Amino acid sequence: MDTITIKDIANLCGVGVTTVSRAINNHPDISEDTKQMILQVIKENHYVPNNSARNLKRSASKTIAVLIKGITNPFFNRMLQVFEQETQKKKYSCILQRVDENQDEIDVAIELEKEKRLKGIVFLGGYFSHSKEKLDQLTIPFVLSTIGLTQEVDQDVYSWVSVDDFQESYKMTDYLCGLGHKKIAIISAGMDDESIGKLRYEGYRKALEHHGIKFNPNLVRCMKDDIESYSMENGYAVTRELLQSGEEFTALYAISDSLAVGACKAIFEAGKSVPEDYSVAGFDGLDISFYYNPSITTIRQPAEKIAKETIRILFDLIHKKTASEHRIFAAQLMARDSTKPLK
Amino acid sequence: MDTITIKDIANLCGVGVTTVSRAINNHPDISEDTKQMILQVIKENHYVPNNSARNLKRSASKTIAVLIKGITNPFFNRMLQVFEQETQKKKYSCILQRVDENQDEIDVAIELEKEKRLKGIVFLGGYFSHSKEKLDQLTIPFVLSTIGLTQEVDQDVYSWVSVDDFQESYKMTDYLCGLGHKKIAIISAGMDDESIGKLRYEGYRKALEHHGIKFNPNLVRCMKDDIESYSMENGYAVTRELLQSGEEFTALYAISDSLAVGACKAIFEAGKSVPEDYSVAGFDGLDISFYYNPSITTIRQPAEKIAKETIRILFDLIHKKTASEHRIFAAQLMARDSTKPLK
Repeated sequence: MDTITIKDIANLCGVGVTTVSRAINNHPDISEDTKQMILQVIKENHYVPNNSARNLKRSASKTIAVLIKGITNPFFNRMLQVFEQETQKKKYSCILQRVDENQDEIDVAIELEKEKRLKGIVFLGGYFSHSKEKLDQLTIPFVLSTIGLTQEVDQDVYSWVSVDDFQESYKMTDYLCGLGHKKIAIISAGMDDESIGKLRYEGYRKALEHHGIKFNPNLVRCMKDDIESYSMENGYAVTRELLQSGEEFTALYAISDSLAVGACKAIFEAGKSVPEDYSVAGFDGLDISFYYNPSITTIRQPAEKIAKETIRILFDLIHKKTASEHRIFAAQLMARDSTKPLK
Repeated sequence: MDTITIKDIANLCGVGVTTVSRAINNHPDISEDTKQMILQVIKENHYVPNNSARNLKRSASKTIAVLIKGITNPFFNRMLQVFEQETQKKKYSCILQRVDENQDEIDVAIELEKEKRLKGIVFLGGYFSHSKEKLDQLTIPFVLSTIGLTQEVDQDVYSWVSVDDFQESYKMTDYLCGLGHKKIAIISAGMDDESIGKLRYEGYRKALEHHGIKFNPNLVRCMKDDIESYSMENGYAVTRELLQSGEEFTALYAISDSLAVGACKAIFEAGKSVPEDYSVAGFDGLDISFYYNPSITTIRQPAEKIAKETIRILFDLIHKKTASEHRIFAAQLMARDSTKPLK
């Protein structure tokens, strides 16, 4: 079936294209009878008005985009739901765009801004070390959501929402130390990481230091490059290696809940138990951390609140109600069955 | 900062708007020097050409939409990743749109088609019982992905991709019967459900019948309306009630893995174990079904394949390489530690 054009409608109605356009756009300069007749023909022929033409007049395409690094992360999944829901409430649409680990998200954003006439952008996940010059190429508002910010970025200029990953990670490690653990392994991001992974690792280091525990580099186990980052599969593979290495530890802190679940599985398969042989802790507060057997001690991030606030700020920026905003949410340590005091 | 318009660029360059437009659109009727000068000014001023105007010339907005019922379902999360990836390969963008349980997805689709000049639509999840008349109002191609189709829909006219939910559910129930279980409870969708939930329930009924097991309505437990459907939380709540009811059963078949995880948690909390006291089985093949403790017997749907095929068919429809296609993928029964023969 060929697409019906405005010309076809004009021919069918025996009027000019301008008259059809007036009917569509509810222009005052057309009689009610003619308008109704034209709209009827449009309806019968399932004609979809060319929206680009209408956009030119209305000068607003109500679309925002969410650019995600790490789309497979279930933590982001919860946030996406809220993004979509809140955007819909504002009668906007939400384009979902994955960014590869090695892709420059600003280049992706600039391209998308042009192509889709976006009104705003949410950057979700990954890290942000772009120069002001580069960021200034983006002419629409954006908010950084749960993103690691490096020093180069002037944090005051841009809007962002997250938890304090350093502080929350410190809190978890401090908790494990408080249970008497001294040999605390960590499943962390790669050492070249500049994102939340780095901040969580630094919180771990700081807590050990405060407790006077000598840092043992053999207990730092980085996620594998060739497996999806922050995933159960990655935690499983890393923990298998740790157990096989023979390096002694009594607690294992994984910087995401999915990693922690994989770690538990590797421990069970090695014929050991949690928390009797090894205490295991995670980070994020996914549902599975509660439903797992045993339930997993974790840091619960308020994902819904973070997502809502991200969209709230983005629309305040779009409507020029604010110049920039920063919001850090407190997270909550959930002490559960996967950790216990060292005897 | 006000948005820079094409007029501003024209003024800055000392040329007319038409000349700027020619430079942008690589029109032959402009000298190379003038073009370069204009493009330089555009670059320096971060001017973003009005894309709707360009769209009119190019007459293509490269966007598809995915309309999801049940956006919180982790099974869909895996598929979304693939949708996004495959769409990006084709240089298209992907709009993500949630549809509420009580919303008419066709109305949402028609609205979106108009607003965004979509090239195609994927309907994901939920069920489909729309009349041909209604569906004909959509003038762009669409594919139904993992959707329950009711009799009213002429299946040959529309394209769809899924597993055979009835047959796969039969397979799982048949497996439990084969282990000697006769009192097999099911966590199913509501009895008014018309989607995959209904098909999976019917597969369960059929397998019981074939094994000569008398159907016991007290062992059919519907998901709760006021809790997210197919979720861990729902499986947990339903199983607690089942256990408290005192109704005897030896196996529990949940029609999603998330429900099965919640069910296991309720069983553990009641001081019972899986599979020693109760065999538990799920459906979908989520990662967590393997990493859970114990690992959960399930039906593994080939989510990536289903998603890829959905996009492949959609683009074949867009490019008029096909009129309609249907693809049913085989799923795989994964026998794991959460089920055992009845002693």
